Parts: sequence; structure tokens; C-alpha cells
Amino acid sequence: MGQLGGKADLKVVKGDMGYILEDVPHFTDYLPDLPTYSNPLQDHPAYSVVTQYFVDVDDTVPQKIVVHKDSPRGVHFRRAGARQRVYFESDDVLACIVTCGGLCPGLNTVIREIVCGLSHMYGVNRILGIEGGYRGFYARNTMPLTPKFVNDIHKRGGTILGTSRGGHDTMKIVDNIEDRGINQVYIIGGDGTQRGASVIFEEIQRRGLKVAVVGIPKTIDNDIAVIDKSFGFDTAVEEAQRAINAAHVEAASIENGIGLVKLMGRYSGFIAMYATLASRDVDCCLIPESPFYLEGKGGLFEYIEKRLKENGHMVIVVAEGAGQDLIAESLRSMQHEDASGNKLLDDVGFWLSQKIKDHFTRKQMMVINLKYIDPTYMIRAIPSNASDNVYCTLLAHSAVHGAMAGYTGFTVGLVNGRHTYIPFHRMTETNKVVITDRMWARVLSSTNQPSFLCAKDIEEAKMVEQQPTQLLDEQKSLDNGCH
Amino acid sequence: MGQLGGKADLKVVKGDMGYILEDVPHFTDYLPDLPTYSNPLQDHPAYSVVTQYFVDVDDTVPQKIVVHKDSPRGVHFRRAGARQRVYFESDDVLACIVTCGGLCPGLNTVIREIVCGLSHMYGVNRILGIEGGYRGFYARNTMPLTPKFVNDIHKRGGTILGTSRGGHDTMKIVDNIEDRGINQVYIIGGDGTQRGASVIFEEIQRRGLKVAVVGIPKTIDNDIAVIDKSFGFDTAVEEAQRAINAAHVEAASIENGIGLVKLMGRYSGFIAMYATLASRDVDCCLIPESPFYLEGKGGLFEYIEKRLKENGHMVIVVAEGAGQDLIAESLRSMQHEDASGNKLLDDVGFWLSQKIKDHFTRKQMMVINLKYIDPTYMIRAIPSNASDNVYCTLLAHSAVHGAMAGYTGFTVGLVNGRHTYIPFHRMTETNKVVITDRMWARVLSSTNQPSFLCAKDIEEAKMVEQQPTQLLDEQKSLDNGCH
Amino acid sequence: MGQLGGKADLKVVKGDMGYILEDVPHFTDYLPDLPTYSNPLQDHPAYSVVTQYFVDVDDTVPQKIVVHKDSPRGVHFRRAGARQRVYFESDDVLACIVTCGGLCPGLNTVIREIVCGLSHMYGVNRILGIEGGYRGFYARNTMPLTPKFVNDIHKRGGTILGTSRGGHDTMKIVDNIEDRGINQVYIIGGDGTQRGASVIFEEIQRRGLKVAVVGIPKTIDNDIAVIDKSFGFDTAVEEAQRAINAAHVEAASIENGIGLVKLMGRYSGFIAMYATLASRDVDCCLIPESPFYLEGKGGLFEYIEKRLKENGHMVIVVAEGAGQDLIAESLRSMQHEDASGNKLLDDVGFWLSQKIKDHFTRKQMMVINLKYIDPTYMIRAIPSNASDNVYCTLLAHSAVHGAMAGYTGFTVGLVNGRHTYIPFHRMTETNKVVITDRMWARVLSSTNQPSFLCAKDIEEAKMVEQQPTQLLDEQKSLDNGCH
Amino acid sequence: MGQLGGKADLKVVKGDMGYILEDVPHFTDYLPDLPTYSNPLQDHPAYSVVTQYFVDVDDTVPQKIVVHKDSPRGVHFRRAGARQRVYFESDDVLACIVTCGGLCPGLNTVIREIVCGLSHMYGVNRILGIEGGYRGFYARNTMPLTPKFVNDIHKRGGTILGTSRGGHDTMKIVDNIEDRGINQVYIIGGDGTQRGASVIFEEIQRRGLKVAVVGIPKTIDNDIAVIDKSFGFDTAVEEAQRAINAAHVEAASIENGIGLVKLMGRYSGFIAMYATLASRDVDCCLIPESPFYLEGKGGLFEYIEKRLKENGHMVIVVAEGAGQDLIAESLRSMQHEDASGNKLLDDVGFWLSQKIKDHFTRKQMMVINLKYIDPTYMIRAIPSNASDNVYCTLLAHSAVHGAMAGYTGFTVGLVNGRHTYIPFHRMTETNKVVITDRMWARVLSSTNQPSFLCAKDIEEAKMVEQQPTQLLDEQKSLDNGCH
Repeated sequence: MGQLGGKADLKVVKGDMGYILEDVPHFTDYLPDLPTYSNPLQDHPAYSVVTQYFVDVDDTVPQKIVVHKDSPRGVHFRRAGARQRVYFESDDVLACIVTCGGLCPGLNTVIREIVCGLSHMYGVNRILGIEGGYRGFYARNTMPLTPKFVNDIHKRGGTILGTSRGGHDTMKIVDNIEDRGINQVYIIGGDGTQRGASVIFEEIQRRGLKVAVVGIPKTIDNDIAVIDKSFGFDTAVEEAQRAINAAHVEAASIENGIGLVKLMGRYSGFIAMYATLASRDVDCCLIPESPFYLEGKGGLFEYIEKRLKENGHMVIVVAEGAGQDLIAESLRSMQHEDASGNKLLDDVGFWLSQKIKDHFTRKQMMVINLKYIDPTYMIRAIPSNASDNVYCTLLAHSAVHGAMAGYTGFTVGLVNGRHTYIPFHRMTETNKVVITDRMWARVLSSTNQPSFLCAKDIEEAKMVEQQPTQLLDEQKSLDNGCH
Repeated sequence: MGQLGGKADLKVVKGDMGYILEDVPHFTDYLPDLPTYSNPLQDHPAYSVVTQYFVDVDDTVPQKIVVHKDSPRGVHFRRAGARQRVYFESDDVLACIVTCGGLCPGLNTVIREIVCGLSHMYGVNRILGIEGGYRGFYARNTMPLTPKFVNDIHKRGGTILGTSRGGHDTMKIVDNIEDRGINQVYIIGGDGTQRGASVIFEEIQRRGLKVAVVGIPKTIDNDIAVIDKSFGFDTAVEEAQRAINAAHVEAASIENGIGLVKLMGRYSGFIAMYATLASRDVDCCLIPESPFYLEGKGGLFEYIEKRLKENGHMVIVVAEGAGQDLIAESLRSMQHEDASGNKLLDDVGFWLSQKIKDHFTRKQMMVINLKYIDPTYMIRAIPSNASDNVYCTLLAHSAVHGAMAGYTGFTVGLVNGRHTYIPFHRMTETNKVVITDRMWARVLSSTNQPSFLCAKDIEEAKMVEQQPTQLLDEQKSLDNGCH
Repeated sequence: MGQLGGKADLKVVKGDMGYILEDVPHFTDYLPDLPTYSNPLQDHPAYSVVTQYFVDVDDTVPQKIVVHKDSPRGVHFRRAGARQRVYFESDDVLACIVTCGGLCPGLNTVIREIVCGLSHMYGVNRILGIEGGYRGFYARNTMPLTPKFVNDIHKRGGTILGTSRGGHDTMKIVDNIEDRGINQVYIIGGDGTQRGASVIFEEIQRRGLKVAVVGIPKTIDNDIAVIDKSFGFDTAVEEAQRAINAAHVEAASIENGIGLVKLMGRYSGFIAMYATLASRDVDCCLIPESPFYLEGKGGLFEYIEKRLKENGHMVIVVAEGAGQDLIAESLRSMQHEDASGNKLLDDVGFWLSQKIKDHFTRKQMMVINLKYIDPTYMIRAIPSNASDNVYCTLLAHSAVHGAMAGYTGFTVGLVNGRHTYIPFHRMTETNKVVITDRMWARVLSSTNQPSFLCAKDIEEAKMVEQQPTQLLDEQKSLDNGCH
Repeated sequence: MGQLGGKADLKVVKGDMGYILEDVPHFTDYLPDLPTYSNPLQDHPAYSVVTQYFVDVDDTVPQKIVVHKDSPRGVHFRRAGARQRVYFESDDVLACIVTCGGLCPGLNTVIREIVCGLSHMYGVNRILGIEGGYRGFYARNTMPLTPKFVNDIHKRGGTILGTSRGGHDTMKIVDNIEDRGINQVYIIGGDGTQRGASVIFEEIQRRGLKVAVVGIPKTIDNDIAVIDKSFGFDTAVEEAQRAINAAHVEAASIENGIGLVKLMGRYSGFIAMYATLASRDVDCCLIPESPFYLEGKGGLFEYIEKRLKENGHMVIVVAEGAGQDLIAESLRSMQHEDASGNKLLDDVGFWLSQKIKDHFTRKQMMVINLKYIDPTYMIRAIPSNASDNVYCTLLAHSAVHGAMAGYTGFTVGLVNGRHTYIPFHRMTETNKVVITDRMWARVLSSTNQPSFLCAKDIEEAKMVEQQPTQLLDEQKSLDNGCH
């Protein structure tokens, strides 16, 4: 085995005109001569009329689709979907599902649809829920999952399996998988979880087990680069409107009212950006990707003062990961400080509230009325909306089709509107708002906020962008209507 | 001039490996030697940091993206976005906006963003609203539109411009455009409206006017083939859940309860299909594309009886255009009938309610309790959700960029997640649920309803599908997570 | 026994200054010498700090509370609440709950709180659900109800017990109660159901059984006179706003747009009236209590024409029982009519739609665009809001306290904001909107609609009102903020 | 003049059997011989059919309505409503409206209905909005208010007039009222605001001005004793459910999950109490009226540990004013502390979060996962629901009728479901949750939380309760279904 997720592991197929297929592992890579079976969907009454139900073995989906007449074809991914031949007999499957990390709308729908997909499409009856995240493999009992049991769970927020963060023991997990005879493992979680899944997959491969390891990427922040959008994101942006609207009402009802809303997004500001664009009531949107500063010309305080003078009130949206450098600096400069108090200042919302209040009341002698809203847990905990429900269904079914077809060590993901199978290592590329791109320019244009960039920043930002891979295609999310 | 929207008008560019670009008209096609101007976005502070703001003149987007290593490249569309050079000076632009046809969530957002896009991005100050649809051009006064005036309209359902259906006089419209000096016409409406726009464009071209005619396709039913999805569709599916949920509660609270919900969809059953998939409470989904029958083996009555015996209650979703042939037959067989009563029976919801009640109470001597819900107007009239708001924004901005860049006679549309410019004639290809495809199979599988197809139907359905154009790509909506 | 619910049965206590107590039956009326027990709440930890937990045996609540310095005191009801002594030992109680009639928000909360109240407050463990309404006593199995089982049901609409309408056999019900050893019967339903409960009570009394029969009045229409308001009414009015808002958007988006919304209210127009007052978007509110006419001076058509000319659009709310005389007349005048068509015309919403369309298109040659919305089932099926949840809780607990204390043959009801025990026969007095009262005047004033009354009608209406019982107190709902 | 709001000012009328009327001031108290006019409602078409539109001059409403056969009649208030004779001619009225203090759902509805009530019922055309609270009288321009201008404001949260807290200059306000010729002043605000109104009234009386001063009490916390409930309270409790539900989902999805929700209520815990009762997902409700302690037997930590062991997760609701004594003690014990950090700890939600985390992670070595939600601003800022909309309408109309009829120096208020006029000084009696009463016992019973009371506390609590005024009537809110 090579490095974890290293390039050494890549299954790459090349073709004419620069065609590249970044393929995913398959049982046959390390277990030759496995028997295959006719896909039971063939005899399913609902599918009897389907002409082209099975995905052609050669179907692939390009990563870049803004093309020129003569441009090279670039990277492709294997298309998701049911295959003619499967590598499991229905009665032999023992599947398990685990959810890890923070809550995200849609978790229960994904769980429901893995269970219903396996059961209704493939006749699989033995499905286990692992409770409380990765550690549940060895520290908790399993929970039998049936279509009846999961029937209504998509109407509830959270995850019926429970979740957790933090460390786990890969060896114990794989031992447990082996001992119980589990042969399909569905892992729903963020980038850390998917890295864990990758290690589990490698250990399983090392042991030569016929166990499919399938990741379903979860990130409410939409910060995974290769996929169009993550499930739950639409729902989160929708729900964020409620907080922005409240902030707007509060701010507008009082002289020099400032409504400050903190939204999710530790490393990327997509929720803040889309919520700002969807709402139109926001005067300033601060995200991790776009550094800002408070004092002086072109700074935030100057802009706040300007907006209050023009309009009497304003709404600021700040992503949780914004301004981390400024906060770190603030904390360093404090002395004799109380630990618990500082912990709170670690929160950009509180820190910024404090800074704004201090500046205007102490330095500017200007009475402002700041109302701070943190709707994070109210957003994470709601059930997914209809659009995310359908999306989660298709993700879950893709996962099931892939596992049945013998693929393993992959995640499912939407690429340019098509469901695909993607190697684990691609999950670690972070999706960020590209601040030299049109979508962010749209935000700046709609809010009229300053760019907080000096000439040097602009140069640097442009340099980063001018990578060959970005030559033809600008930011995906720019153009795709929030998919 | 050739035929309206005929192949003769097509601007087609061909390339290697089967590359085809179906291009859209441009002023320079019939008005050579027009002066161009530097795009004012270049000097816009919000856009100052954008590296690649302007779309490369050669950027195109493929229609089919499920590809093989060696497959031909196929049809492409011109990518939407701002161009380096524009064909209008800001002060010279006099734009107008008109909305036609039925209500759809998002109309006001599109209006708002055409106004704000023109004003904030291009400094255009003269924008007129045409009231009450096409006839408003000559029968009503115009309404001046400013960013301030449209500031909050996206929070309201409907269209502030009003709308209408029915005939209009193209010549009077073009006279009016010419007389008033309007040079950008934004037309928001369904396929009939877009056909009207095409005729208006041809007349404008015939007269040699420098007037951009831009369509923004509107169809709550999502029944336009070439685009990924229409704006307002997500919102409509979301809102439809409410009615389905009520039907489920009503049905489940009474013995042999049947909840029947009629949803929009005269020619295509997308709303019914997606609402069924998102909700999971539906036992039978009837759409125009899938013929069904009531009596006898494999018919609807048999299935209803079976479900009631198994489960005690059931929920049926029917798209408004389903079963039209059966209704026509019913009406023909009536004698001495009252006109107003029959008009109601024209509604598939009432007709089906009546048929089910008659069958079970008269013929089967079985007491059923049917509750019929028609949420159509409650769905159409709500404001668009956050996802549709962002989508409408991008559509509107694409339209503005295209008009400023001298393109005309086109509609904007999302193709594989990328905004593009599409020739008018492509709007008339109807998007239908392909009942031999996986998405519909998923519905059948999740509801367990019969396919209502006899062997002959299946053969026919399969024949239709086996067109060369469908060789590589199955139904777009199958795989793209409801985009 | 005297007549059903006749005056002969009344337990009336009189006092000074015209004080009258209309009391409810008690076990001791026909079963002397029953043992009593100390109320177990005395030892309940949660209640240990309560000073005056037990209701004073003499507490009563006046029906009329708008008084003069020297006015007689009038009718009073017994105050609800826990008593010092109870007539059941916890282990001996076998309670049952039944729901009858149409759906209403809050049914599940009432069920939940009878179960939790009996269990948590009184330690009762044997509680049965009767399924499918009255007939369920003898035609269906019972369903054991526990706090755990009912824990989340208040979050769902409908009734988990199911319901039904129509006839039942009192003797079989009482036989079943006797055979099973049930000694507390909780009956949730409308006026017909309460009449049934009264007959059941009389049969139980005749047989000399120690069985408490308790009614919880349910009517989404708020048409029971003696109580302040019925549970679910607030929720229904809230939900009705959604339909009115949609009707307004639809109407306002089209020339001569008319939005017509039918709301519940067969005999009384409270939902229509309150929804109109809460919404403010309604131009005309038609209710059963206020006759109207279509043609001629002061008629509806004239008003519609006027509003459309003034404002371009309008919203009409019609209660389901409005205009029944006009409909009957319409139906009589039809010949050669189709039965199924007419059935639909029986619905005031369709009938009125038809009449308006006919009038304006045929007679007036005026193009109108009428959109008809019937949200009835979507309103009935939603879960109760927070206010109704608390209300249902207190109703249920009052019922439980009363039964434990040996009262029987009564309903619980809110009178002037206090929970009371009310004799069954008072449930049959219908609450109607008094059209000569201020609340209705407020509606007329806010909509500007005509009163549709000729001089003769006004005289008659005033005559009806001038009953002695109304001398001091005008319509209850007038003044109590919708309680 | 006597003391502000002192007993010396009271207008008290006595009658037989202990009848007491606490009356409100009237112009004729200090301005004899004012002319009166016939009430214009007499000629209003909408009111033409009303028989008893005008309130009988002797109508009063008792404060206590739980009575015995022979109990004394007690305190009454003057019934609100239109009077036969008014003290203003419509054209002479110049009214103004001001809103003060924090936001509360319904403010805009009250403003709307004062404007529409004055205009539609009394033909008053000159109505001014005072912007930004009391100071706006002299520091800001006024804003003309018309029915058209306020037509849709009830659909928005906040107050269109703006608001402020803090000091104001009574003399300047009265000067301004006098100088502008304002003769009706409508003041919407909490107890501090009503005290201010009382002082303004006394100054106006001192100057002998014919200016009606009318208060509309606003307190989202429902902490005014004499009235049934304050407007906006229902809406707030409804919206609080959303946060509690999110807390429940978060807590239930993780091992030892604790969801902590802070709700409004500085001095009284009504919102927390009703939200707890309505939701049923709460395991512990902490309010200002019920002291609690953290450590030791019977303390909060012990209970938390118990619930987590039993159930794996729990939800705590804390009113903002709860535990203030504990917080004060905590803060005193800190040294070398950072001011800004401490300010946050002043918030009971943060303080409690910190304490719980410290206790379990440091002392108990138990991993807990606490999620803290503060939905305050999201609750305050929403529009009022339908029930509150109707309630606000009636409050506003009562205020208008009272002012027109020459009453002044009063507030409007719902007493036992009837609208009344109440002297200002009664507004200062605080409504508190009575922890020795049944409603709070219900909370304890439904949550199973400890009472946190030692024997001594219980004795003391009981002592407070045993006041003669409470002899017959327990807590109003106990029995009235949250009205």
C-alpha cells in the first residue's frame, strides 16, 4: 500500500484529447475471481419498463464543462448508478450505517434512503445502525434498521443514529466489521470523517476483506470542492433568512440599529454568501476567505459609520470563521484575563459585537444599538426541505448501487448535476469562496460594502487564481444557480 | 426571413469530434459596424478585484455531459456572462420588462434583479415595467422601475407588473417599442410567451432596429426540455408538501380514508413526481406522461382497494394533465348534462374523486372517505425560497449581460449547472417525465403503485426512447438532484 | 329519568341577588354512600408546594360578567379543578378515550393530556383508546394508551384514535363499557357527539353504574355558545391567513382578479370573520348568519363591479354555510341536470364562482379572472399551535379532575377565561355571529362591503337581539380578544 | 395634585355587597362644561344595523370572577367601547402615536388599527407618528399616518415608528403636544413607559389641556398583573417552540447532549412556562420567580446527571431573569477579571452554560455536549400571529373609543376576556408566576424537575400567597388557557 490517499493509489485511465478518468477502487482490484450476479432490479416490477436502467459501464462525467471548440477534455469521474451485474447476493448482504460530526439537515433522509434503497431495490434485509459515530462500532450496541422503522424519520431534524466528534480506533472498527460479518459500510460525515473512511478502507483492503466502504459527504458549509453542493446546504441557506430578517427588523426599529448575524462556515463562507444574496437585506457580509480590518480608511468601522449615517441602520452577516487572525491578535493583547470570558470572545460574533460597541460608544461617542443573533443550532437542527430530500434520496441510492456493484473506497457526489463516484482523496480539497470571482463580486455589488483589500492583497489573490486548472473554468458555484 | 424559429435561422458552428455550437443571434448579424464600448464593470469597485470577470468569447457548455472516452462532443451552448465590450452606453439604454402567463414563485425576484443588475452593474437608469402582460405594451401606461421601488418585492408572491394570458398584436408591440425608443426588452413567460418573443424579435430584426430581445423562461411545471430546471420549481415542490401532508393526516384519521391532491402539471408531471419523492407519504402518483386506467386488473380501483385493505388509508397525487383521455371519454358518454357541472368534471381532481366515490360506494358497497385538496393557487402565489431567489438573480444578471453585449433573440437558461444563452426555438421542446427512465421507476418503487402499462405500452415506450440523441444520456433530471 | 337533556334534569342552585348555579351531575346523585379517597396529588412532589391546589367546593364562575352596580348576578357554572377528595382509587380506574366527527387541530393534544394527566397526576395506568369513533366501542379492538406512546402525538395533526361520523348504538356502547369494566369515559366531539354522550350518560345512570362520562367539546367552527372559544379555533384562523394571502396575490397580479376563499363554518361564520379581521386583505366576507343577494342594487355583483373598478382586484371570503338559501333556489331552477355536477354546485365556493363568472362574462361582457381556493382540509389537518396546545392541556386536565372527583354527565369548558364544568344540554346552544353586534360591524367597516340588509331585515335582526338574556351583555366574542 | 399615581388620585365608586369601581379620569374631572357631540358611528353604514353598539355608561367588569354564592363583589373596571356622546369633533382631532421600549410582535398592528380606527370609524384625518420613542416628540420630525400608509404594516415585525429606551423630558413633551395642538396621545409601551404616560397626563391635567392620554400596555413577557395577557405573548410563545425543538434535536443527536434555550422574561417567567407547557420537550424550566441552586442534593447538577443517565439527553429552558442572585455571587467571587468577558457572563444563558460545562467536565469527568440557543431577537422581531392581530385590533379600537369619549389618563386592557379602561397606577403591579400555584405545579409535573425549594422556602412562599386578595381567586393565568 502506498500513502494514505496518496497519488500512488489513484486509478487513472487516459484517453484521447486529454481525457482523464479518475476512477474509484473495485473489489476486483484486490479480490480477483469474485462471482457476480444478475442485478435483481431486472425483475423488479417498478423497473420492468425501464429501458436503460443500467448505467453503461463506460459512462463518465467531466469535471470541467465550460469548454472551447478545441479545449482538452480533462478529468472525468465514473457515473453513479445501477450496474447489470452485482457482487452480492441479497441475502448475503449485512450493511451498516454510521453518522459522524455535526448535525446537518438531511442526515435522516440519507439514512432512510440507504435502508429503503437496499431493501426495496435489492431485497436486502439485514441493515444495522451504528450509534453515536465511529466509536459506536466498538463501544455501543447496533440498532437494526428496517424500512418501517425509518419510515418517518426524514420529517425530523438531527440523526436517529446519534453522532459524535473526535478520535476513534481504526483497528477496532475493522475488527468489529470483520467479526460481525458486515460487508457494506456506509459512512456519512465531513472531510475528517471521509479521511477516516479512507483509512478504514485501506485496512479492509489490506486484510483482503470483501467489504464495500462508501462515503456520503456531509458538510453544511458546502466546503468540499469537487462536488456541486453538499446536502442540507439549501435548507440551511433558507433557514438563515429567518435570522437575517429578524436582524433587519430589529435594526430598522431603532436609531443606529445594527443587526449582526453569525452564520456557519469555519473555513468557507458559502452559507453567508448565499444567504446574503438570497435575502438582499444585508449591508455587509464577512467571510473567512476575505480578510477585513476594523480601523482606518476602508475599514469596517468607517463603513458602519457611513451606512448608519446614510440609512439609520444596517445588517451585518459574519461567517463563524471570518476574522480569525484579528481575534487571535485581540486575545494576545489581553492581560489578566478570565479564561471563560475569553472563550466567548473566541466566537467571532461576540468578539465583533464587543469591538463595534467599544469603538462607537467609547471612541466615537455615538450611540449604537447592536443586536447579535446566532441561529446556528436552529439551522442545523431543522429537517431538510423538499429539494434536499430528493437530493439525499439520489445520493443514498447512488451509494447503494455502487456498493452492490462492487465499488469500494469511494464517495458519492454530484458533479455538474450528475451523480458520480469519486475517490476519497478528492474530498479533502476544500471549496472556498473565490474572492476574485464573480459570485463574490455580486455580493460586494449588492451590499456596497468595501472589499477590504489593498492593492497588494488584490495582486496576491489574483496570483492564487491563475493556476492552470482554473484557466477555463471559474468558480463552479458562480454559475450554477446555487447547485 | 426564414420560417419562425425554423432551422434556417440557426447559427450553428461546428468543430472537431462532433462539436456543435448552437449559437444565438447578435446585433452584428444584421447591423454591421455598430460601435462598442468598454464594459463599465471594469471600473466598478466591487468588481475591481475580479480576475476573470469577463467570460471568454469562446466559452461554451455541452448539452450532454455523460460521455465515453471516445464519444462525439455534441451540441453546445454559448456561455452566459459579462463581455469585455458592450454595445450600449449606459445613458442610452431604455429597457423594459414584461411578465406573461400564470403566476410562478420568483417572478418578482427576476424583475428586481433585472432592474438592480442594469442599474448597479451597468449604471442604467431608465427601466420601464409593462403592466398586465404583452397587451400592456399598447393598452396600458408604463411604470418606471428603480432599485428603490423594487427593493422588497422579492419577499412577495405574484408579479408587481401584473400578467395576462391570451392574444396580442406583435405589430403594435414593435411599433410601441420603436416609438418609445426602447432598446432592451426582457420578456418573462412560458413557452407560448417565448414563441411570441421570437416573433417580436424577427419583426425587430426585419425593421433593422437595435433592440435586444431577451427571454427569461418561466414555467412552474419545469416542462422546458433544454434547461436543467425552471425557476420557482423548487419552491413549488416544497409548498406542495404541505398539501400532501394534510391529505395524509386526513386519510389516516378515518377508516378507508383517501387523500387526493391535485398538483400543477398540464403536460408534464415533474411537480407531482418530485413532491411524491420528497414527501414519501404518497401511495400513488398519476402524471400526464403515464396513461392509467380505472377498472379491471392492474387498474387504479384494484390498487386502491388493495392499499385500503392493507393499510386502511392512502394518498393519491394527480397532476392536472393526467388522465385527459379518460376524462374526455367520460364527458362524451354523458347525456343531458349541465354545462357548469361538466366544466368542473373537466378538472381531473373532481373527475377522479367522483369516479372513485362512485365505484366504491355504488359498485363495491364499500364505505370510503375521500378528501380532495387542490393547493394550486396557494402554491403559485408564495414568494420564492432562498434557493430560487439566488437562481432568479443569476438568470436576471445573465440576461442583462447578454443584452448589453449585443446578443438578442435568445433566452437565458441553466444547462448542466452553467448559465447559457439558448436560441428561442429550443424553448419549445417540452420536457416530459420519461416513464421508461430511472426517476419514474424510483417513484413506482417508492409508492408500490402499478405501472398501468400493458406489454404493448411498454414496447411503444421503449421505442420512443431509442432515439440516437438519447443514446448516451438518460433523462437529465434523473441524475441531478432536482436541479 | 326525564327528557334527554330536558330542564327536568337540571341541578339548579339559587342564591341571593339572582345568583343561579347550573350544576352538573355527580355520582352521589344516584349512588349514595360511595367511599371517597384522599386526592393523591397531595403526595405528589410537584404539587407539594402548592398552597391552594384544591378548588374550593363552592367556587363558581358567572356566565355574564359585564355588570352594573346593582345588576342581578345570574347564571354561574361550577369551577373546574382538583378536589380534596376523589371517588376512585388509582388502581381501580379503567379509562377510555374516543374522538368523533371531523378533524380539528388539537385532538391529539387532548388525547395526550388525558393520558398524561391521569397517569402523572393520579397514577392511573389503565387507559384505552377507542378507535374510529363511537362505533369503535363495539366494532373495533381497543388500543392501550401510555404516556410513552402518546409522547409526541401533539406534534401531529389529526387524531391517532381515528374518527368517524354517523350513527351508533347507545345500548351496545354501554354494554361494552359495562362488560369491559370501564369507569371513566372521555368523549371528544362536536354537538352531535355531546348529545350522544348525554344519552350514554343517562343510560349509565339508569343502570346505576359508577362510570364517569365526560365530554370535551370539539368544534373548529367555534359554534358552541356557552364557552369562550373552542380548541383549535386559533390555529384554524392562523392557517386560514395563508389561503387569504394567496388569494390576494393571485387577484392582485391580474386585471379584474378575484380571489375567492372558502373557509369552514356551516352554521356560524367565526372562522371567516376572524380570518378577515386578522388578515385585512379581504374585501368581502360572507357568512351564514348574514343573508346576502347577488343581483340588483346593494347586491354582491354590484359591489364586486365597484371594487374592481376602484381597485382592479378583490378578495372574497365565504364561509361554507353562507348563501344556502340562494343555492337551494339555484338548484331547484335547473332542469335536466347531471347529478354529479350538481353535487359540486352544492359547495358554496363553486356555486359562487360559477355565478360570478356567468354574471360578468355573459351579462356584463366584462373579463374577470376568478381564482377559487378551498383550504379546508389543509387547515383541519395541521397540528395545534402553542396557544391551543396549552388550552387543550388545561381542558384535558379539567376533565380528569372532574371525573376523579365523581362528577359525571358534564363537559369541560372555558367560561370568561375560567375552566368550568357545564351540563351537557348547554352544549346544544349554537354560537352564531350576531350581525347586529359590534364585531360584525367591525368586519363591515374594515371591508367596506354592503350589509346586504334591507330595512325589514334590520328590524328583524334587531328584534331577535332584544331578548332579556342579551340585555347587559353583548356578544361574548366581541370583547374578548378572540378567546 | 397628589402623588404620581398615588391613591389620592383614584376615582373610586362603591356599591352594595362590596362592589367597587376603580374608575379612570375624564375631561370633565377638570374641564367642566365641555360640549359633547353625537357619536359619528351612528351614521356609519357598517354600524347602521348594530342594535347595542354603544356601551351602557354603567357597564363594568369584575376583576375577580371565581365567586361563591355569598362572596363580596369586589373591584370592577369600566368597560371599554364606543359611547353615545363624544368630546371631539372629527375635524378637530389631531392624534399622535408613539412606541417605546423593546420590540414586541403586534406593535405595527396596534399602530395600524389606531390609525384605521380613528379614520374609518370617526372620520379623523390628522394622525401623526412620533419617531424613535418619547424623545421623538421634541428631537425628531413627525410622520403623517394615513390608512393607506399603514395598510400592510401588520405583516411586518418591529415598529414602523421606531423605538428607544431611556430617559426623556416630560416638560418638553407636553410643550410639544401643546404647541402642535395635539389632543389625543396614544402611548404604546411597557411599565416604565406607562409610568411616563402617567406623568405626562398629570402635567397635561395641571395645564388644563383638553388632551386625551391613552396607554396601550406592551410587554412581551406578559408581566402586567391586572390584564389577562399582553399582546404579542401568544406569538412569542409560538415562536419559542422553534428554538426548543432545535435544542431537543441537537441534544438527542449526541451522547449526554444538553440543549439550553434562553427565553425572554426578566422579572417573570411566563414565556418560559407556557413554552415549556406547549412544547413538552423540556426537562427543566428555570424562571425568576423560582430560585434554584446548582450544587448538592436537590440541586440542578444532580438533576442533570440523573436525566442524562436515564435518558441520554435533556432540554433546559431558562428565562433571562432566572438565577440573578447566583450570577451576582459568581461575579463577586471572580478576581482579575476581564470586563468584556464578564459582561457576557451577566447573561444567564452563558453563565449557566459555563457552570454546567465546568461542573461536568472538571468535577465529574463526564463528557457532556451542551448547545446554547438564544432566540430572543428572532422572537421579538416576527409579525404577530392571527390571534394577536385580532387582539391588537380590539385594543386599538378600545383606546380610540375611550379617547373620543373624553376619558384620559388610562390604559386599555383585557380583564377576564372583556376590554376595559384601567387607571395607570394599576399597570405597575407586576404579574409573576406564582410558584405555589397550580400552573407552575403543572410545569414541575410535566418536566419532573425538582422544585429547588427547601422546607423554609415553601413556608415563605405559602405565607406570601395567603393574602386576603388571593383568598378566592388563584392565579388568573392558571385557569384561562393562556388568555
